[in-house]
Amino acid sequence: VDSLAGTEPQPSTDSQSRADNKYKTLLVTNTAGVFSITLNRPAKKNALNIQMYEELIAALKEASVDNSVVIATLTGAGDYFCSGNDLSNFMNIDPKNIEAMAVKAGDLLERFVSAFIDFPKPLIALINGPAVGVSVTVLGLFDAVYASDRATFHTPFSQLGQSPEGCSSYTFPRLMGPAKANEMLLFNKKISAAEAFSRNLVTSVIPDDVFAKETQAKIDTISKLPRESMSYSKVLIRNAEKATLHSVNKEECRVLIGRWQSQECMNAIMSFFSSKTAKL
Amino acid sequence: VDSLAGTEPQPSTDSQSRADNKYKTLLVTNTAGVFSITLNRPAKKNALNIQMYEELIAALKEASVDNSVVIATLTGAGDYFCSGNDLSNFMNIDPKNIEAMAVKAGDLLERFVSAFIDFPKPLIALINGPAVGVSVTVLGLFDAVYASDRATFHTPFSQLGQSPEGCSSYTFPRLMGPAKANEMLLFNKKISAAEAFSRNLVTSVIPDDVFAKETQAKIDTISKLPRESMSYSKVLIRNAEKATLHSVNKEECRVLIGRWQSQECMNAIMSFFSSKTAKL
Amino acid sequence: VDSLAGTEPQPSTDSQSRADNKYKTLLVTNTAGVFSITLNRPAKKNALNIQMYEELIAALKEASVDNSVVIATLTGAGDYFCSGNDLSNFMNIDPKNIEAMAVKAGDLLERFVSAFIDFPKPLIALINGPAVGVSVTVLGLFDAVYASDRATFHTPFSQLGQSPEGCSSYTFPRLMGPAKANEMLLFNKKISAAEAFSRNLVTSVIPDDVFAKETQAKIDTISKLPRESMSYSKVLIRNAEKATLHSVNKEECRVLIGRWQSQECMNAIMSFFSSKTAKL
Repeated sequence: VDSLAGTEPQPSTDSQSRADNKYKTLLVTNTAGVFSITLNRPAKKNALNIQMYEELIAALKEASVDNSVVIATLTGAGDYFCSGNDLSNFMNIDPKNIEAMAVKAGDLLERFVSAFIDFPKPLIALINGPAVGVSVTVLGLFDAVYASDRATFHTPFSQLGQSPEGCSSYTFPRLMGPAKANEMLLFNKKISAAEAFSRNLVTSVIPDDVFAKETQAKIDTISKLPRESMSYSKVLIRNAEKATLHSVNKEECRVLIGRWQSQECMNAIMSFFSSKTAKL
Repeated sequence: VDSLAGTEPQPSTDSQSRADNKYKTLLVTNTAGVFSITLNRPAKKNALNIQMYEELIAALKEASVDNSVVIATLTGAGDYFCSGNDLSNFMNIDPKNIEAMAVKAGDLLERFVSAFIDFPKPLIALINGPAVGVSVTVLGLFDAVYASDRATFHTPFSQLGQSPEGCSSYTFPRLMGPAKANEMLLFNKKISAAEAFSRNLVTSVIPDDVFAKETQAKIDTISKLPRESMSYSKVLIRNAEKATLHSVNKEECRVLIGRWQSQECMNAIMSFFSSKTAKL
Repeated sequence: VDSLAGTEPQPSTDSQSRADNKYKTLLVTNTAGVFSITLNRPAKKNALNIQMYEELIAALKEASVDNSVVIATLTGAGDYFCSGNDLSNFMNIDPKNIEAMAVKAGDLLERFVSAFIDFPKPLIALINGPAVGVSVTVLGLFDAVYASDRATFHTPFSQLGQSPEGCSSYTFPRLMGPAKANEMLLFNKKISAAEAFSRNLVTSVIPDDVFAKETQAKIDTISKLPRESMSYSKVLIRNAEKATLHSVNKEECRVLIGRWQSQECMNAIMSFFSSKTAKL
């Protein structure tokens, strides 16, 4: 975990050591009420492969039910926060199985996003660098988002022939209005941390050279606040919307399952892979 | 179309020529996937008379069902984007027929706003100059709004004894909060393009001298994006709200039909016409 | 009323004199269509004791039904707008009666917030100085909020082991997004007037030395606008949300009644009182 080295609390109990062993694509620690999840495939810019989706679902579940956990945090190892869905998930798909694969992927995505919708304690994103795709869209489901000034936010769905997920078709227009949400969700605009702040996606922007230190101080302070009060407040703020969010999630996944089987999407992804730079 | 001269694609096919003939108050072109509508009564600052309302409804319908259309745009000829409802619509009304006239006008307005609510493809406003009344309130139903820095946004409803339409009683508080929405909708505040941007009514503000060129470039880029993906994304973003928007539209029109028959509204409009400047 | 001395209209009619006598913790005047309420316990920083809650409910009711009233305003006497719930309301509670007291306080709070939800005319807050707790959270229910640049906004609920009220669990995330709302509602952040403006809680910020004069001018202008038009517009904007707001209010009070009886809340309040500074 390059970017947090020196500030991240070291695992020290048996339960943490066990937790660490359980996850292959994540670094997970649980200390002093803070359940800290780090996406840990820095060589792949923390792109989400199938295992990582499953492990994130499991980690959020673990943090939900563990009474010692007051808050949970999510960050990325290395330079990126997360480069989004690993497009190699789309490779080597037998054309005969494409429908079954799409349905399976849609189910995984729906369970993944549901884990964020249902998380019952304050959930804090520490955006250490560029964030892409579903790692951006789920941010509307976090309770606080602290971003390094190096962070960028990019959701190039239409460029890849796809459509929004992570409940962003619902949360983004409510955060920033449709005129700005569509610039991101339909027209592929990449925004800076400062823009993400003014669009209400981000709680505050912190200079990169003090990002690890300052966010650690914030997390320490927050984790010592009255925990029941925070948890009741979060439930109050989110509960009325929960049914809507689940239904939005379901509908977004249903549309994506169709997209993934469409000629337009296949062409867009092939064109992405065959371009020299393959850069979004 | 003064402000877009030289950048607007010239009509070149039969279908465009036919389209052009069909509309008397609009300039309509359909080229390379872009259905472009220009309000074309520059001598009247593009004030909306009854024919123009009907032609806009027809043009949006045409763009909806024409499979060659990827996106639609709306702009104004001359200096103004649109000066709103043509108040001469209120002139020469036989007092005996006032109720029937009000009901008819309410029906027209409801169908007009519905055409924006139901439009199934990306709909982009190019605000080339001042925008007034219903031409401002429907902007919450557009998918992107690019504004010249010469543009202003003004909804002087209470000054004219009227009430909000275009679903703005619903969309404006959601875009900018009630405290700022009411400043516009109740207290007649005219805002600048920069303010409209910070209130999430506008996607981005562009210097007037490059407005035509830069918006044309944006439209070109957008019209080449995967079209199914954009259309599915738009439907996803808007569909969950559609029933609510139609019911808001209906209720706004019902209230306005009452307003138009009220002594307060008649006094306010007469006072407007009798004032020397008749300036909002 | 130090901060408004010289600009506040002097009571001059019988009905005003009677109104003044009716309220012990408020200054109330009713002149030229403006029903003006001033929180009047400046020595206590206008902290809300039980009598003040009841008198505010009564004053809003009076303004609702009095046909001479076009708009109502709320401000504070002295340096503070309002320091929130008077924590001495929590003192001297017989442990045997704690449940009954909590239920009674929850009922009072619910009626108090309902009076804002149901107010049928434009309701304008003039934030002359620091605002704390429920005096901040109800601002989402006002139609305009003018703030002195001396004003601050602070909702230290979790610090006191409590949870949000005033419908803020619903209105704040919609005004500024959850990422910024939670910073206030869960993590106790105090924000400036400028921040409150950029978070859509405030209509505009006015330099303190001209605050009384400029807000009086705004109120004068607004009170002369067509009153039916403003009232119909307000109802249109708020009515669709009314049932939701009442249900949010009920749920927030239910959770608070639980909080007030919790060990965590008692500890937090005792710790607040026993700290040397007792400063939020």
